[in-house]
Amino acid sequence: MSKPIYVLSGPNLNLLGQREPEIYGKDTLDDVRARCEAAAGAKGLSVVFRQTNHEGELIDWVQEARTQGSALVLNPAGYGHTSVALLDALKTLAIPIVECHLSNPAAREDFRRHTYVSLAATGVVSGFGAASYELAIAAAAGLVGAA
Amino acid sequence: MSKPIYVLSGPNLNLLGQREPEIYGKDTLDDVRARCEAAAGAKGLSVVFRQTNHEGELIDWVQEARTQGSALVLNPAGYGHTSVALLDALKTLAIPIVECHLSNPAAREDFRRHTYVSLAATGVVSGFGAASYELAIAAAAGLVGAA
Amino acid sequence: MSKPIYVLSGPNLNLLGQREPEIYGKDTLDDVRARCEAAAGAKGLSVVFRQTNHEGELIDWVQEARTQGSALVLNPAGYGHTSVALLDALKTLAIPIVECHLSNPAAREDFRRHTYVSLAATGVVSGFGAASYELAIAAAAGLVGAA
Amino acid sequence: MSKPIYVLSGPNLNLLGQREPEIYGKDTLDDVRARCEAAAGAKGLSVVFRQTNHEGELIDWVQEARTQGSALVLNPAGYGHTSVALLDALKTLAIPIVECHLSNPAAREDFRRHTYVSLAATGVVSGFGAASYELAIAAAAGLVGAA
Amino acid sequence: MSKPIYVLSGPNLNLLGQREPEIYGKDTLDDVRARCEAAAGAKGLSVVFRQTNHEGELIDWVQEARTQGSALVLNPAGYGHTSVALLDALKTLAIPIVECHLSNPAAREDFRRHTYVSLAATGVVSGFGAASYELAIAAAAGLVGAA
Amino acid sequence: MSKPIYVLSGPNLNLLGQREPEIYGKDTLDDVRARCEAAAGAKGLSVVFRQTNHEGELIDWVQEARTQGSALVLNPAGYGHTSVALLDALKTLAIPIVECHLSNPAAREDFRRHTYVSLAATGVVSGFGAASYELAIAAAAGLVGAA
Amino acid sequence: MSKPIYVLSGPNLNLLGQREPEIYGKDTLDDVRARCEAAAGAKGLSVVFRQTNHEGELIDWVQEARTQGSALVLNPAGYGHTSVALLDALKTLAIPIVECHLSNPAAREDFRRHTYVSLAATGVVSGFGAASYELAIAAAAGLVGAA
Amino acid sequence: MSKPIYVLSGPNLNLLGQREPEIYGKDTLDDVRARCEAAAGAKGLSVVFRQTNHEGELIDWVQEARTQGSALVLNPAGYGHTSVALLDALKTLAIPIVECHLSNPAAREDFRRHTYVSLAATGVVSGFGAASYELAIAAAAGLVGAA
Amino acid sequence: MSKPIYVLSGPNLNLLGQREPEIYGKDTLDDVRARCEAAAGAKGLSVVFRQTNHEGELIDWVQEARTQGSALVLNPAGYGHTSVALLDALKTLAIPIVECHLSNPAAREDFRRHTYVSLAATGVVSGFGAASYELAIAAAAGLVGAA
Amino acid sequence: MSKPIYVLSGPNLNLLGQREPEIYGKDTLDDVRARCEAAAGAKGLSVVFRQTNHEGELIDWVQEARTQGSALVLNPAGYGHTSVALLDALKTLAIPIVECHLSNPAAREDFRRHTYVSLAATGVVSGFGAASYELAIAAAAGLVGAA
Amino acid sequence: MSKPIYVLSGPNLNLLGQREPEIYGKDTLDDVRARCEAAAGAKGLSVVFRQTNHEGELIDWVQEARTQGSALVLNPAGYGHTSVALLDALKTLAIPIVECHLSNPAAREDFRRHTYVSLAATGVVSGFGAASYELAIAAAAGLVGAA
Amino acid sequence: MSKPIYVLSGPNLNLLGQREPEIYGKDTLDDVRARCEAAAGAKGLSVVFRQTNHEGELIDWVQEARTQGSALVLNPAGYGHTSVALLDALKTLAIPIVECHLSNPAAREDFRRHTYVSLAATGVVSGFGAASYELAIAAAAGLVGAA
Repeated sequence: MSKPIYVLSGPNLNLLGQREPEIYGKDTLDDVRARCEAAAGAKGLSVVFRQTNHEGELIDWVQEARTQGSALVLNPAGYGHTSVALLDALKTLAIPIVECHLSNPAAREDFRRHTYVSLAATGVVSGFGAASYELAIAAAAGLVGAA
Repeated sequence: MSKPIYVLSGPNLNLLGQREPEIYGKDTLDDVRARCEAAAGAKGLSVVFRQTNHEGELIDWVQEARTQGSALVLNPAGYGHTSVALLDALKTLAIPIVECHLSNPAAREDFRRHTYVSLAATGVVSGFGAASYELAIAAAAGLVGAA
Repeated sequence: MSKPIYVLSGPNLNLLGQREPEIYGKDTLDDVRARCEAAAGAKGLSVVFRQTNHEGELIDWVQEARTQGSALVLNPAGYGHTSVALLDALKTLAIPIVECHLSNPAAREDFRRHTYVSLAATGVVSGFGAASYELAIAAAAGLVGAA
Repeated sequence: MSKPIYVLSGPNLNLLGQREPEIYGKDTLDDVRARCEAAAGAKGLSVVFRQTNHEGELIDWVQEARTQGSALVLNPAGYGHTSVALLDALKTLAIPIVECHLSNPAAREDFRRHTYVSLAATGVVSGFGAASYELAIAAAAGLVGAA
Repeated sequence: MSKPIYVLSGPNLNLLGQREPEIYGKDTLDDVRARCEAAAGAKGLSVVFRQTNHEGELIDWVQEARTQGSALVLNPAGYGHTSVALLDALKTLAIPIVECHLSNPAAREDFRRHTYVSLAATGVVSGFGAASYELAIAAAAGLVGAA
Repeated sequence: MSKPIYVLSGPNLNLLGQREPEIYGKDTLDDVRARCEAAAGAKGLSVVFRQTNHEGELIDWVQEARTQGSALVLNPAGYGHTSVALLDALKTLAIPIVECHLSNPAAREDFRRHTYVSLAATGVVSGFGAASYELAIAAAAGLVGAA
Repeated sequence: MSKPIYVLSGPNLNLLGQREPEIYGKDTLDDVRARCEAAAGAKGLSVVFRQTNHEGELIDWVQEARTQGSALVLNPAGYGHTSVALLDALKTLAIPIVECHLSNPAAREDFRRHTYVSLAATGVVSGFGAASYELAIAAAAGLVGAA
Repeated sequence: MSKPIYVLSGPNLNLLGQREPEIYGKDTLDDVRARCEAAAGAKGLSVVFRQTNHEGELIDWVQEARTQGSALVLNPAGYGHTSVALLDALKTLAIPIVECHLSNPAAREDFRRHTYVSLAATGVVSGFGAASYELAIAAAAGLVGAA
Repeated sequence: MSKPIYVLSGPNLNLLGQREPEIYGKDTLDDVRARCEAAAGAKGLSVVFRQTNHEGELIDWVQEARTQGSALVLNPAGYGHTSVALLDALKTLAIPIVECHLSNPAAREDFRRHTYVSLAATGVVSGFGAASYELAIAAAAGLVGAA
Repeated sequence: MSKPIYVLSGPNLNLLGQREPEIYGKDTLDDVRARCEAAAGAKGLSVVFRQTNHEGELIDWVQEARTQGSALVLNPAGYGHTSVALLDALKTLAIPIVECHLSNPAAREDFRRHTYVSLAATGVVSGFGAASYELAIAAAAGLVGAA
Repeated sequence: MSKPIYVLSGPNLNLLGQREPEIYGKDTLDDVRARCEAAAGAKGLSVVFRQTNHEGELIDWVQEARTQGSALVLNPAGYGHTSVALLDALKTLAIPIVECHLSNPAAREDFRRHTYVSLAATGVVSGFGAASYELAIAAAAGLVGAA
Repeated sequence: MSKPIYVLSGPNLNLLGQREPEIYGKDTLDDVRARCEAAAGAKGLSVVFRQTNHEGELIDWVQEARTQGSALVLNPAGYGHTSVALLDALKTLAIPIVECHLSNPAAREDFRRHTYVSLAATGVVSGFGAASYELAIAAAAGLVGAA
């Protein structure tokens, strides 16, 4: 049986649905998890779905995905814009990396326009709310040959 | 019957499959068209699929999509980085706009990191080669309620 | 009989009245044309009034104004911010050039604050909606001695 | 009877006609005053016309225009480029503000390309010498409904 | 009897309560004066409370505070962002300097993020409306040993 | 009984009194806690007072304050300058946020002049050593109506 | 027989000899064509010589040169400074590319110092007026082995 | 008898000798006046010596020097770094302008490295304390032919 | 017996030998530990050798080194480029600090050229792979007098 | 007999053929000398051909060319990017100056994109390896009328 | 007898009187030498007067002045803008350093606005042509107590 | 017998021990030479040890080391920050290059933070005074296999 897709979410995404719903939508993170599991399941794939507010823990998990996962879907949230350490972790991975954002950072504050994560990502999906995760799962599935 | 999704591609994409295949992949633009039609058809949708090297023509077509399309999938290629005129055209649209790139611009030269198109786009899909178009169709379909 | 004033409008101005009316006002481009003709007529002058979405065509027309016009009123829209080629065309003219904008670009996004057109313009009128064109005609008329 | 249009001029404009005539023209400030009064009079309007070299006095007058004027035509001269305090004064006004320059700052030194005044102005007229004031009066008249 | 605390306010603060109340609040400058006098009086201190739109006068008063005051509470308003001359005046003082703002400049336009005044201030209080002045009085009182 | 004010301190503040006392003063963090409790108690309020060197833990606590606190006093220390994740956490709060610093960052190195925290803060108090906390408590008390 | 050298000229070069002769010289574009044909003929080579004001047409022609030409001599004029789309077209070519300018852009305005075209060019010849074209032909001839 | 040399000093120089003596020296402004009068007298010249904290007054005096003075020695102090209005006043003068500073601004904060005044000055003398004024008088005397 | 040298390594160094070996070499972190212990032992010194992916934990350990170590050898990895909090921790130390990198950051991406750590370090050793640690131990030994 | 063309080469060009041949080609500097002599001889011209690693010597030679040469072909190598002194020397010349580079600096590191030499050069030839020198000779010959 | 004042001139000043006389004047360097000797002699001082085009030689001489001179007058010409090595040499001197320029660099190209020399200079004299040297001698004489 | 390690020092290092001892230490360059010879001798290696104030001579020596040396230890001093020519010389070397500084440039002025030398260096040692040279010898010895 194939390795799962790691779906990792960064800081404050535990508040999804409560935090600035006009930007991030009304789905909770549990809703997103369910949608990811369904999207992956439809392709015969499983997911490891986790969230943390801690940069170090996110790096630990990325390292875990390095050997335990078939692909990584990562919503780095605020750490995407500032963490060289996270970028370095991603650069150790040989599996596909799909960066994913609920909103379209390009249309927000200047400091959200650049992510270090993009420098190591295979591709990016942003701006579709919770559907960004589903599309990212679809993209990852395609990259690991599970279309 | 619903309006079609406009799928517009900018300069040099007519050379797809020949131009820098290590970056853009081996699919030709006709291959991409076929995959877009299939992806849309699976959702009960149709596409208008066009390419041009002319900025003005691209703007004309975006304006056409404004009244004739249900959504716009746009790969602006080089014009995305430099055209305020294209951005202004996009801002006249009330339909969903999905920006789409074959490669991940964030991992290339500095002048590819920013697109004016992003400022008007609902969301962005980049980095998955020809699959970027399919994912963009899927995203657009979701946004117009054709899931 | 004197040569006409060329009144040239750039990309997306064909949508005037429909596009972001809170910024650009409700007048259509035909309304603007009528007001320009009236303003010029009152001074005993005629106008050549055209719009295009194509940068190359705008340059062709500027070159035409070089020999066929007595003055140029130019609303470059998006091309004003990005086109060195348009600037070079303007620098070939010996007639007065009045840059004209419906809105006040200084109060909008940063990338709208600078136009290459300004480097070759005799003067600028901006921010008065369709009246910007009328004032520009008045300014041009003064410069060609038709007050 | 309606309130007058305030026409305020900033530092060194008292030397108009003597200072760098190749840039600013040969009209004196008294000439400009006469042309403004004529232009306003033709619309049934009056003007309050003043000049000062003092930033604080300019701010005092802008505040006076706030309650005593129907519109403000302001040539801030050198203070336009540097005075946040003047901008703050302008932001307290509910009447139309027309920024006006004799020369076209965009074609001069870099530090003249930006004015804080533009951030609060309804519109801008620049580059037509003394005629800039007349056009600004016309623009202001239009904005207060005295066409 | 101890020297008074100088409480100086810069340009446009005479319009307090009328100017952009959604940013600056509804208190007038007289209300602020009363609150400052009360806050100082509760500590057994007096205040000298003045406002001016003139940069030079503000510098004159800062110089006066140098010998006549026990501390300085300064709301430089627009001059804080642009005046090196004011900074130089402040650097001649040996008494505590408390910079004070009604709004939080960090959350507004970029050009409000930096003040020269901060380079010479002991501390800063900003964002609490008229209460900023009271807190600044309290801070100054603490610094001069009048707790 | 009302909810407590959360008073959170970031990295290295556990060394207060030992670290660069010429900049930060001689009070220890326990001294600060005592002063905060006294200041709050005088207003009939209580405080939750904590310190951590971990960015993720600071974010966890800010999220806790979101539902458990009446206001937040935050000294983000080094994380204030670099953490978009912390900013995002703060933006989820509907309660008043008072940013607080022992020293005046504006008078130190360039990289201390900007904090992301300021973008979400109601107001800022800085430069008064341990008294900055007391003033911040006073400001927060005023904002929650406990004057 | 060998493929011709494509000699393509961008916007406003149709006005050569009339436009700013103190910068660009008195030769007309027909003069330049004659000199290019002579220079190529002397090496046993032919040229395809075209000019356009349209960015899209320039891209079309570059793509044509890709399969129909032995080398490309390109004077991109104003588009050289602004067109990523033109750069992308050039990057699809396997033949030598010689960028050519009549004037020396380094000695003019700042925005003329950089061309995107240079990033894809084999070499550059600039500053020799019409002779720049002849030297570029000579350089191209050398690169295709026709010395 | 020849016109006097105007010697104008800007903000805070009235405190000379008291303000930061380690930077500016112990001479008072009266000492400087005496030294200037002596230096000028030795060349058979007279001086008009004034100081003001008001930017507008400084501009008034510069305009006066335009017709009443043979040369201008100007220590603009803080206004030198920020005042475009002062620069514009200086550009109306046909007489020699000698910028003069007590300290060497190049060795201080970054914002002191540039003065607008330098753009209009014939020459600059800085860094020699009160002797800077004497040297400036000597330089001015030479420029007006009074060696 | 003397206090040990603290040798602390930041994020992703636990993957040493696996991650980008063409940049970082083939030694594992255990190899590095052994080499550090040998290098220190030869000087009669001991080491405390630890690695973490967590910025907060790294700060905790730096604080521990403050009282428990004789010197600090720190390879901050990605946190060196972004962490003001880490810099603040280092500034509390009175013992020598040797910054150490496996690769030469100056020859890599721009964002690796600057480290906050350097602002507090006594010296830096970079670019020699695992030998960087040994040289850093030697440097630290010299600084604590154990040559 | 006419004066010779000075052909001067800057630092490290003595290693030509050995240094980074993938960038600079396999020709040695003696090969280049021979090609330059042949190219000049074919036009009836002679050359003075020299190389130095010393900036001062290069300036001495440029000054010599000022009176002894008919034209200057200069490959400034590394000094072109950094030497204002070399630029000043070039500005003393009334003869044509042809800047010449073996590689195309525009396609290399950022700091190679600008040369001070270009500010004084008549024209530039770059990117054609040793042939750049021959083309530069041809350009110089044309400029001195020896075609 | 006292040590001489070193008067050192940098690159291209040997051409004084020939090079750009509209900027630098018609005096030759020998004229300047004579004027310096006269100016120093009048104060009972002698000068060592030298010029070089070689940065290294200039540094050698600055080091010589360190022990053999009473003061240094330095016109660094082009090296002033670019040489950190020259700055480092100057920082080894305990004697007064007077930077001196014939023209006023502030009114020329941007890259002439800053000199590293200024960071180590006691004072600066610029813009008075050959008289700048005389004033610099006078300034140096004053600093060494020979007034 | 193996080739020596070249140890080259740039401008002003001949003054070591006299120049700013609080930054550079009290060792003279002869002391450093002795320590380098001892450090190399202990590894069975010899050194060529030289210093110059002349950039060109430094380049000559680097070129000599290219064929005569086994490794290069280079303290470029001021030329490291400004010399592209020196960088180009270093890029011709196939032997290890160790950049070495007495002080830690990162903790000094901004213009010392970057060296061109770093772009070609294998590694860097800085901040340990004369010991930096010894550590650099040790690093070089390791790189040439002489541990």
